[in-house]
Amino acid sequence: MRRTGVAVCLLVLAVGISPRTTRAQSRQSVAEKLGFPRGAKLLIVHADDVGMTHAVNAATIKALENGSVNSASIMVPCPWFPEIADYVKTHADADFGLHLTLTAERVYYRWGPVAPRDKVPSLVDENGYFRHDWTPDTHIEPKEVEQEIRAQIERAYAMGVRPSHLDSHQYRLFQNGKDLSDAFARVAHEKKLPFFVVREWFADHPYLESGLGPDDLVIDHTVTIDPGVTPAKWADFYTTAIKNLQPGVTEFVIHVAFANDEMTAATRERDTWGATWRQRDFDYFTGTEFRDLLRQEKIHLVTWRQLAQAR
Amino acid sequence: MRRTGVAVCLLVLAVGISPRTTRAQSRQSVAEKLGFPRGAKLLIVHADDVGMTHAVNAATIKALENGSVNSASIMVPCPWFPEIADYVKTHADADFGLHLTLTAERVYYRWGPVAPRDKVPSLVDENGYFRHDWTPDTHIEPKEVEQEIRAQIERAYAMGVRPSHLDSHQYRLFQNGKDLSDAFARVAHEKKLPFFVVREWFADHPYLESGLGPDDLVIDHTVTIDPGVTPAKWADFYTTAIKNLQPGVTEFVIHVAFANDEMTAATRERDTWGATWRQRDFDYFTGTEFRDLLRQEKIHLVTWRQLAQAR
Repeated sequence: MRRTGVAVCLLVLAVGISPRTTRAQSRQSVAEKLGFPRGAKLLIVHADDVGMTHAVNAATIKALENGSVNSASIMVPCPWFPEIADYVKTHADADFGLHLTLTAERVYYRWGPVAPRDKVPSLVDENGYFRHDWTPDTHIEPKEVEQEIRAQIERAYAMGVRPSHLDSHQYRLFQNGKDLSDAFARVAHEKKLPFFVVREWFADHPYLESGLGPDDLVIDHTVTIDPGVTPAKWADFYTTAIKNLQPGVTEFVIHVAFANDEMTAATRERDTWGATWRQRDFDYFTGTEFRDLLRQEKIHLVTWRQLAQAR
Repeated sequence: MRRTGVAVCLLVLAVGISPRTTRAQSRQSVAEKLGFPRGAKLLIVHADDVGMTHAVNAATIKALENGSVNSASIMVPCPWFPEIADYVKTHADADFGLHLTLTAERVYYRWGPVAPRDKVPSLVDENGYFRHDWTPDTHIEPKEVEQEIRAQIERAYAMGVRPSHLDSHQYRLFQNGKDLSDAFARVAHEKKLPFFVVREWFADHPYLESGLGPDDLVIDHTVTIDPGVTPAKWADFYTTAIKNLQPGVTEFVIHVAFANDEMTAATRERDTWGATWRQRDFDYFTGTEFRDLLRQEKIHLVTWRQLAQAR
């Protein structure tokens, strides 16, 4: 699916996060299980791509400790994973999931699989890194995907990370057919970890729903900023999204980093999800405007760990 | 061998770089082949660890372009290798070798082998990174070393890097016995690349000499700063080394980087070869004091590419 903007996201009806789909109406909603009224607006402010660079790690930690970001997910194959693993071990309450990664989309700074690369040949390019991108002609072998995501989860546990949830870098595990999404669901079920899947994705990708088990959580809405938003309209985009937030559970998928030398160099081939993009997200979600809006709109922050406990 | 300080280095007699050892006296020296008088003082100012971080890459490029550093070597397994490979492709005259790498000595920022990690199990730790360190109890399998250094060289060529020479990160290929040094020499011979080996190392490690072929270059002296030198004495150390430079070819093994957020975070567990250490090297070797001393002491800078041509 595309990285959907708020306009699309907010069209979706709120039905409350729940085990599977229609069973929601007949059961206590997650909001209720967490002690909120049924129609409460619950929000996960989720920073992606932790571990990618030191600039992402440092900004994420600051946004979690001093800002209104309350959840994040980690890219195990990336070079700065050991730094964030060390942080997680001493901050067990922080809500970190794993951002399962199958691509290395940058040009000047790259990473490769955790599994031995000769065991996952469809995932790597001619130099042994994860592919920059997948095209319709790229054959991705589902068994290799499953092996690689297992290897990432195993390295995380081995290095002391107990993830609260799983999600997928660049949505690769959701938007590429049933075999990959089933592999993802299978591994998540085996590890007893909730994973990020959004009800509004089912229309375009029905296989997502068919792979879910009876106890799987489904997020009601998601919002992520669109590449078309200009820097001047950055705050407006999020402010509008917050003011239009619907009841149920919404995840804001954001990308924070400091726009320092490292981050600028690592992302310099394009502006999208680049250093200044991520600095804007950091600034907004650690600022007072966002904090005040949450209070004003009676929005409650919830973490994946809380959701998992309510499951 | 230890990272020898200048005091040790300068005890060694200068005999002029030459194919092998005693044949030197009876043949035209490399200095002569390069058009210098036999007793000329030739110096390679060599920056190690390129590719390790963006801060190392940026500082190395600046030191090569605007300073008196004239040679460097690249760590292919490191995350920022693609950035420096891109630079090398558009700066074919720059004197870059490969800094063959078998360890990932940092704590918060790590890398692993280029070969599939299940093919080089003796080189990796339980999480799949290169080992932090080797102890006398660590069994390193020479065949795996050879496979890994071949993989590094092949990735470099595949990504457009035509190295001028080879050397060994942390001297691992020299100080761990004949099997490893022979593997190194064998691969270097096959690739027709000169490699960094210093005559004064032969006393402690005779196997180094026995593995050399008749056309191999041997550097006369090397100088690298000792961890015991205080920041206040940094410039004094190098100034003394330059004033005491002997005839023949000397390689200064230095480590440049900018002490920015990235480099500070990547090296924060200890000061040695850390961010401020490397910034001091950058400052000295791009400063006017060093440049003026070279002129005053009639020292000529030579590159590995020049040496290879004289071979």
